[in-house]
Amino acid sequence: MNKIRIGIVGYGNLGRGVQYAAEQNEDLEVVAVFTRRDPATVEPILPVKVERMDALSDYVGKIDVMILCGGSATDLPRQSVEVVRLFNTVDSFDTHAHIPEYYDRLNAAAKEAGHVGAMSIGWDPGLFSLARIYFDSALAEGSTYTFWGKGVSQGHSDAIRRVHGVKDARQYTVPVEEALRRVRAGEEPELTTREKHTRECYVVAEESADLARIEHDIKTMPDYFADYDTTVHFISEEELLRDHAGIPHGGFVLRSGKSAAGNRFLMEFSLKLDSNPEFTSSVLVAYARAVGRLANEGKAGAFTAFDIAPKYLSPLSEEEQRRQLL
Amino acid sequence: MNKIRIGIVGYGNLGRGVQYAAEQNEDLEVVAVFTRRDPATVEPILPVKVERMDALSDYVGKIDVMILCGGSATDLPRQSVEVVRLFNTVDSFDTHAHIPEYYDRLNAAAKEAGHVGAMSIGWDPGLFSLARIYFDSALAEGSTYTFWGKGVSQGHSDAIRRVHGVKDARQYTVPVEEALRRVRAGEEPELTTREKHTRECYVVAEESADLARIEHDIKTMPDYFADYDTTVHFISEEELLRDHAGIPHGGFVLRSGKSAAGNRFLMEFSLKLDSNPEFTSSVLVAYARAVGRLANEGKAGAFTAFDIAPKYLSPLSEEEQRRQLL
Repeated sequence: MNKIRIGIVGYGNLGRGVQYAAEQNEDLEVVAVFTRRDPATVEPILPVKVERMDALSDYVGKIDVMILCGGSATDLPRQSVEVVRLFNTVDSFDTHAHIPEYYDRLNAAAKEAGHVGAMSIGWDPGLFSLARIYFDSALAEGSTYTFWGKGVSQGHSDAIRRVHGVKDARQYTVPVEEALRRVRAGEEPELTTREKHTRECYVVAEESADLARIEHDIKTMPDYFADYDTTVHFISEEELLRDHAGIPHGGFVLRSGKSAAGNRFLMEFSLKLDSNPEFTSSVLVAYARAVGRLANEGKAGAFTAFDIAPKYLSPLSEEEQRRQLL
Repeated sequence: MNKIRIGIVGYGNLGRGVQYAAEQNEDLEVVAVFTRRDPATVEPILPVKVERMDALSDYVGKIDVMILCGGSATDLPRQSVEVVRLFNTVDSFDTHAHIPEYYDRLNAAAKEAGHVGAMSIGWDPGLFSLARIYFDSALAEGSTYTFWGKGVSQGHSDAIRRVHGVKDARQYTVPVEEALRRVRAGEEPELTTREKHTRECYVVAEESADLARIEHDIKTMPDYFADYDTTVHFISEEELLRDHAGIPHGGFVLRSGKSAAGNRFLMEFSLKLDSNPEFTSSVLVAYARAVGRLANEGKAGAFTAFDIAPKYLSPLSEEEQRRQLL
């Protein structure tokens, strides 16, 4: 069997997760990791060649699929179109509002280069998007809901850290049980932002900081917290490291609806993840397999999870898939 | 917009469900229903032309996709290969053990005719198969479980009806809560048949029948009940009609596993359906849309849910899909 040769671009939580995930898949092989740091300073979690970012072009012909593990804010919009000129790519671009323009740019660059660029892969966007499209298609009349959590939101944790007097913080997004209950009961409720999620903040304050003012600043922060029921817990740095070191996440996609005869249906997909980046990586790796196969078929352009038939993801042959999974 | 023109072959619960489901999709149109009965005796649930089975060939060029609504035991193995010579088809063939040979026969006939035949569509096989392939692919190390119910098993109800002294019966398959709890807790247990499901039977006995003997005959029936914890409730015909008239079903697909770093993940997909045939029909109709589109692209052959990219199922344009669902 020819293994699919993988490169990892960016070696943070996600990049390390890709290395872990590739280890679990016999048909995939990580050839090299590319980093902006000095490679001599990078200690890989498993043995692998560590290269400078500008060595990428030396690997043309030696790597089949590059998995881009940078951030959606600044890294991916620039990186994806550059790397796809040289390699097939997979990325986890997750800024929902910019997906259409990102798709158009990636699609143009990938088609020009004759490569496949799989974008917005992971769990949301990714597996949750798949749940939404299958659910909505399988049941034309109904209401679809996405709930996130309980899990750590990196963006909200960062927002708290920018509050004056805050030393460190961890923010959990928590789905409201009562809202989930109503959806599952088939009520098809219209839910406000506040009714769907609460926000729990664990904050380490600087010594002698004004805790009441910090709590007020967090709870009234527009976009991030003002529209939610937010609770703020002040804890010690030691407690934060001890009790909140993980990056768990998860969530629910539900669709509730009915047939034209009035019979009700409920579809539900949920994830419970001890490590958000390691699960995202595990999905990225499955799509790297798909991208390798699509490229072998001569396909080119940008692909989302919607554009890729499930058979491409599985290490099983199509016959084994029908026999074992159908 | 050119509507996709649908024909319904077989007009039982499933065929009627297809008519209901098509009604909810603006881009689909039911042109005719084909039945083995005398069309004059068939009262459609919504106005539609009712035709004899042997009028099928008159509709070549007038129907884009035939949805085959016969049974898997005898109807579909014969019908599918015949009808696919004239039309694109969708069916719900669900005899898991015979899927490989069914695929091969359908694939050969469909390729020869230049048509698309989508097979084993519904929820299991169908949406549950999709959960299995996506879950297994997204997480290489773990254990996958399928639970069915609570729901009516037609096959088991029929088996009870064949017991001497039984007038009517309804059998519910029920997942064992403790097994579900252990899977969700990440134990990855090895579960026996008995540990996964129980069977609840509601039985109307003939007058003066020997109830103890009936109960014994049911509980010891090989394949159907002997390997399960089975409970038998004797009720009146009136109670059966009043409390057990529906055909609800549902179930769960779960995958529990971990990353190479040891972090645990749980994926869960579940369905709760007031009407098993009406939900199956609703899925068939979405795949009829996909089949219409694949045929327009010039594709031919047998397709399972694994072979069809999700984008084909949705009534939205690909751009709308990315904007609204990704």
